[in-house]
Amino acid sequence: MFHIIGEKINGTRAQVGEAIAARDADYIRILAVRQAEAGADRIDVNAGTRPDREPDDLAWLAGTVQDATSAPLCLDSANPAALEAALAVTRVAPLINSVTGEQARLSGVLPLAVRFGCPVIALALDDSGVPHDAAERLAVLRRLVTAAREAGVSDDMIYVDPLIMAVATGDHAGLVALDTIAAVRAEFPATHITAGLSNVSFGLPARRLVNRTFLTLAIAAGLDTAIADPLDRDLMAALRATELLLGRDRRCLTYTRAYRAGLLTPAS
Amino acid sequence: MFHIIGEKINGTRAQVGEAIAARDADYIRILAVRQAEAGADRIDVNAGTRPDREPDDLAWLAGTVQDATSAPLCLDSANPAALEAALAVTRVAPLINSVTGEQARLSGVLPLAVRFGCPVIALALDDSGVPHDAAERLAVLRRLVTAAREAGVSDDMIYVDPLIMAVATGDHAGLVALDTIAAVRAEFPATHITAGLSNVSFGLPARRLVNRTFLTLAIAAGLDTAIADPLDRDLMAALRATELLLGRDRRCLTYTRAYRAGLLTPAS
Repeated sequence: MFHIIGEKINGTRAQVGEAIAARDADYIRILAVRQAEAGADRIDVNAGTRPDREPDDLAWLAGTVQDATSAPLCLDSANPAALEAALAVTRVAPLINSVTGEQARLSGVLPLAVRFGCPVIALALDDSGVPHDAAERLAVLRRLVTAAREAGVSDDMIYVDPLIMAVATGDHAGLVALDTIAAVRAEFPATHITAGLSNVSFGLPARRLVNRTFLTLAIAAGLDTAIADPLDRDLMAALRATELLLGRDRRCLTYTRAYRAGLLTPAS
Repeated sequence: MFHIIGEKINGTRAQVGEAIAARDADYIRILAVRQAEAGADRIDVNAGTRPDREPDDLAWLAGTVQDATSAPLCLDSANPAALEAALAVTRVAPLINSVTGEQARLSGVLPLAVRFGCPVIALALDDSGVPHDAAERLAVLRRLVTAAREAGVSDDMIYVDPLIMAVATGDHAGLVALDTIAAVRAEFPATHITAGLSNVSFGLPARRLVNRTFLTLAIAAGLDTAIADPLDRDLMAALRATELLLGRDRRCLTYTRAYRAGLLTPAS
């Protein structure tokens, strides 16, 4: 079953940032519940604030969301102090987003994942930046998976992220991501593969069309999780149709149930 | 570049059948022009009538459509007499839809394709019916490609059709078609691969969602032509987004042009 990590609680979005600053718990709770009800399997929380404020903000966000829904969290921060503050309040081990091949981030974040028994997202970049082709990305990811294994993280607790770049800035950005996904799926069959979908459409018009088309292609290549907007009905409909067509929806039951719930036709 | 074969002029559709019976050339012409303007690269013509009437009807359809648009035709019939009557009036060699591994059809239709220099669609079925799995379909298609080559048809004049079955009657119907497409692409890189898209969604609700999602998956697997409805804006938008994401739209020019023409957003 494909999993959606709901992306809406992100402090870099103006209204969410204001809600965090004002400690508007109702606003955050509603956003968490709406995403869970729309089919999010996890809720991403990203404070998007300055490093000195982030520990307090992320811990507040994590506590607020976990009181509103039983969906587990994804802690979205590169700041070990913020992660640690949020980990201190979460009751269910959250997914940590993320470690990279950058030495500082690897040594700062990976030990926290081990200590708290958390699954962890591993991004395909290192101190040299984001590699341009699929083979180099795979090489970075191979080193990351090796480091995670050596730290005691099992493959099914690793969420590999191929790092999707914008097609608008490089014609082959989609292909590189798809090739990386397929290569990871072949080499590390037990890992999860996840991605932030919306990067692919950055700078283009009709972004949601590009995002949902990419989701279909990426699932076929081996993606099994995405950080995305579960309130985007067309995206969720494309997800249901993709799983149906890939033979993962026994007797079309999930698809026809979604149809009967009115989820596969345009919102009125 | 992906090619769409416009499917609307099909006598099994009630209004088209009436137009054929009444020799309503205007109705047929408008349907041809609208499809070509919407992006159809070829226009399928299917008389859908009894064998004794089909030669006259198909020849009339072919003549009517070719007078209305410069898009080449696809003659959709298993009846050699009807094909021959239509071939006698067409000025540009049409695609013939189709030959199969059935002995009568192979010996009746393939010689016509050779004699008139026509490309030909080869369907994955033989006298034993439609094989259930991808390996058996590939075996049927291998015999068909061999027969076509021996008759003097070059690979780039062969349009292999994996025969898409309904997901509603078999959970793995989509996967079998996708696997067959990928296997044909690997074994016969110079052939075209085409399919009638809408079969896949037979018996399901929200069929257009399933059809366009399948188109995206099938293009990634190697499909380069589809018999489909070019007037389905969402389908054509999914096609543009898929080509963009697979690195086949240099500098996103086709995509952004389609957006500016208002083709990528819901019709008002």
